Amino acid sequence: MPTLYDCGASGNCYKVRLLLAQLELPCERVEVDIFTGESRTPEHLARNPAGRTPVLVTDEGVPIAESGAILLYLARGTAMLPGDAVDQARVAQWLFFEQNLLEPNVGTGRFWRLTGRAGANPGAYRRFREAGAAALEVVERRAAESPFLAGEAYTVADVAVYGYAHVAGDCDLDMAAYPALDAWLRRVQATPRFVNDLAPYPPHAAQRPL
Amino acid sequence: MPTLYDCGASGNCYKVRLLLAQLELPCERVEVDIFTGESRTPEHLARNPAGRTPVLVTDEGVPIAESGAILLYLARGTAMLPGDAVDQARVAQWLFFEQNLLEPNVGTGRFWRLTGRAGANPGAYRRFREAGAAALEVVERRAAESPFLAGEAYTVADVAVYGYAHVAGDCDLDMAAYPALDAWLRRVQATPRFVNDLAPYPPHAAQRPL
Repeated sequence: MPTLYDCGASGNCYKVRLLLAQLELPCERVEVDIFTGESRTPEHLARNPAGRTPVLVTDEGVPIAESGAILLYLARGTAMLPGDAVDQARVAQWLFFEQNLLEPNVGTGRFWRLTGRAGANPGAYRRFREAGAAALEVVERRAAESPFLAGEAYTVADVAVYGYAHVAGDCDLDMAAYPALDAWLRRVQATPRFVNDLAPYPPHAAQRPL
Repeated sequence: MPTLYDCGASGNCYKVRLLLAQLELPCERVEVDIFTGESRTPEHLARNPAGRTPVLVTDEGVPIAESGAILLYLARGTAMLPGDAVDQARVAQWLFFEQNLLEPNVGTGRFWRLTGRAGANPGAYRRFREAGAAALEVVERRAAESPFLAGEAYTVADVAVYGYAHVAGDCDLDMAAYPALDAWLRRVQATPRFVNDLAPYPPHAAQRPL
């Protein structure tokens, strides 16, 4: 059985848990407290030189880091990732978009907001919000033309973007401005075996250095 | 023949050009001036709802956006991307790392520095540099233990990370602090058909809104 080095409050980890649930894949789960440095120990750095979660360790003991890489790996050969090379690339496109434009802005902005740092860094927080809004507009544009992000079928493109899009309101983004995105969020929530077990930040998350 | 919607001064586009050269893949190139809004026209938004370059349009006319997705697509079935699922995931891991930790910090910090905006936003520029340095430390750690990022062989993991790692000095990061990374940069430069055609920012790049 594979092992997921996981953090309950991490949207990146939640994506992996959602896919595992929807594919009904058994997996051992090890909680890593990223807020007290548990992802920066020598043991965890050997799993992932970037010192982050999630990391999936395969049955053969090989660690795979980065939520996008884990989603593509777990979804191969299932309905969540098309087999055709071009179709697969159009799924991967959304996973990269999410890690480059959505997560660094909405994810970081939300972390700052919920752990009480936004007020101390208003300029940076404003930039996170503006760039996060631009990322939501991209999803809005796509959701207005297609039921799911990569086309007619629900795939890991949707899982990846859902991870932070569904909590973007937490960093003072007005979700009412994105009606097609909102309808898409509800389509994702209606898929079989959908779960949302994203945990709140623990109180000590506010002490983690930025 | 595929078409690459390209920007000479973009590190993300340069990665694709480097891979095309090394795989000896013919491709038509269309320059998009991202600094005057050419990537935000209705025509380009139809290719990529995120309004960015690079976009590869396949022989069949299907657009693929995001440098990471394009690299994985073009490299499939070649020596630049292993066929085994776990090995492939360990390559993809570096592509996601690069788009999440390296490019948003080194790429944006470099753009700010070279277009004269760093001084006006010292706090934000300092954060880009600190997060960029943390990303370089990850590459340093990996380069100290492995000739190439995904293992013994040169792959698109190296192409992706090279794109911005080789110009990190442009945003006031001290490259002498990363000797293993430096040796890895030189191993990449020594690979067959290596090219570096990353263009300087044009003068009007300084006018683009942030």
